[in-house]
Amino acid sequence: MNKIESVKNPFIKQIKRLQKRKQREKEGLFVIEGYHLVEEALHHAVEVQDILVTDGKSIPTGVSKVNVTLITSQVAKEISTTATSQGIFALCHLPQDERFVITKKGSYLLIDGVQDPGNLGTMIRTADAAGVTAVILGEGTVDVYNDKVIRATQGSLFHLPVIKGDLEEWIQACKDNRIPVFGTSLQQGTTYTAIEAQDGFALIVGNEGAGVDEKWLEQTDQNVYVPIYGNAESLNVSVASGILLYHLKLAH
Amino acid sequence: MNKIESVKNPFIKQIKRLQKRKQREKEGLFVIEGYHLVEEALHHAVEVQDILVTDGKSIPTGVSKVNVTLITSQVAKEISTTATSQGIFALCHLPQDERFVITKKGSYLLIDGVQDPGNLGTMIRTADAAGVTAVILGEGTVDVYNDKVIRATQGSLFHLPVIKGDLEEWIQACKDNRIPVFGTSLQQGTTYTAIEAQDGFALIVGNEGAGVDEKWLEQTDQNVYVPIYGNAESLNVSVASGILLYHLKLAH
Repeated sequence: MNKIESVKNPFIKQIKRLQKRKQREKEGLFVIEGYHLVEEALHHAVEVQDILVTDGKSIPTGVSKVNVTLITSQVAKEISTTATSQGIFALCHLPQDERFVITKKGSYLLIDGVQDPGNLGTMIRTADAAGVTAVILGEGTVDVYNDKVIRATQGSLFHLPVIKGDLEEWIQACKDNRIPVFGTSLQQGTTYTAIEAQDGFALIVGNEGAGVDEKWLEQTDQNVYVPIYGNAESLNVSVASGILLYHLKLAH
Repeated sequence: MNKIESVKNPFIKQIKRLQKRKQREKEGLFVIEGYHLVEEALHHAVEVQDILVTDGKSIPTGVSKVNVTLITSQVAKEISTTATSQGIFALCHLPQDERFVITKKGSYLLIDGVQDPGNLGTMIRTADAAGVTAVILGEGTVDVYNDKVIRATQGSLFHLPVIKGDLEEWIQACKDNRIPVFGTSLQQGTTYTAIEAQDGFALIVGNEGAGVDEKWLEQTDQNVYVPIYGNAESLNVSVASGILLYHLKLAH
């Protein structure tokens, strides 16, 4: 088995370069870190090209078709983006843009400009848990292949389609399929509890500070908000998304 | 107005020391950063001792009784725990342990060993939004005066009592007051939607990995879970707390 001992090895330099979004998009590759995420990638529709692992660490099963390279713990430290590296990494191919077909009973989470990686990752995890059909990332949203986003998804990134898209087109496509589109707003709309659970729906949630852009709110069927009973100015966007997704999915 | 220009100034060294929990508890002081948080502290029951601000930055109103010290942007950078400092800080007194009286219609969020500062802060913010009466921090929970926790609360830390406590005593006190106590568990219990909205309640949520300790789950009136419809193994604890708190607070 090949072993890399130098942090100056070109392959290691490539792995480090992929911490930048531009480079990921240029090379069509991204890196994941940690046993659980590597396992999830191997078991779902992700093309894993290489696994890098420190000596003595176990590798998830099902890796026969993947190149495995041993690395020293110093090299692992060099490419790790966490304080305490688990010493296992995978180099994966970015998924190809696929034609995605909307279904009438599908549920869609449309994300408008969420900036915090932890929030985006948690929202993808929550969408997965709530059984959402697909997550759509509008313009201005943090890159989903950012290491912090991937970590916060806890593997859910590999469980459902997470698609970069034009919210305008998606809202229109939902309308064409008679799927109700709900916007979220602090200033206007209906308390979410006034909305019934839905067979199919699209929910638009927005940026941590600015919320959902007014131009999308004008195109929705209805805008909803989560009422604030105490003195908080707002809810964290991933918490609000969880409350709304579970409300829309479940018949209370 | 006094101006500090050296990062070696003893006051600046003290501020830095207070980034450690032990030191905060020894000195009975904590530090907050950012205009909004300083404003929130000044407007609520927090004893603010000093404000440190870089030249030219505005100070929230209502500060007449507080010492204000000018600092250079280099000093601000030295004491900041964020990537881009807003150049305003406040040194505050830790609240005294007060006798807190449980009320029959009160709602209480009991936290068992949550470790991630962002999660704890977000949960306090959510509890505030949901109109919870008090948040109780059981043993093993990250210190609430950690800078990351304070930042994630977005000021909610100053809006409701957040109390370090013994969960055993709190569960018993709730029972003595006939307040139903709900535990959360992935493995056992009832889907949360089977529970009615409650006038008063206690909800126990737990550590990111281990969940709520079995010894608490045995003492609850009922244990509930949020169902998972997709392939996620679990929800983020702050998202789950949001779904459950809003469900328990609101009559659907």
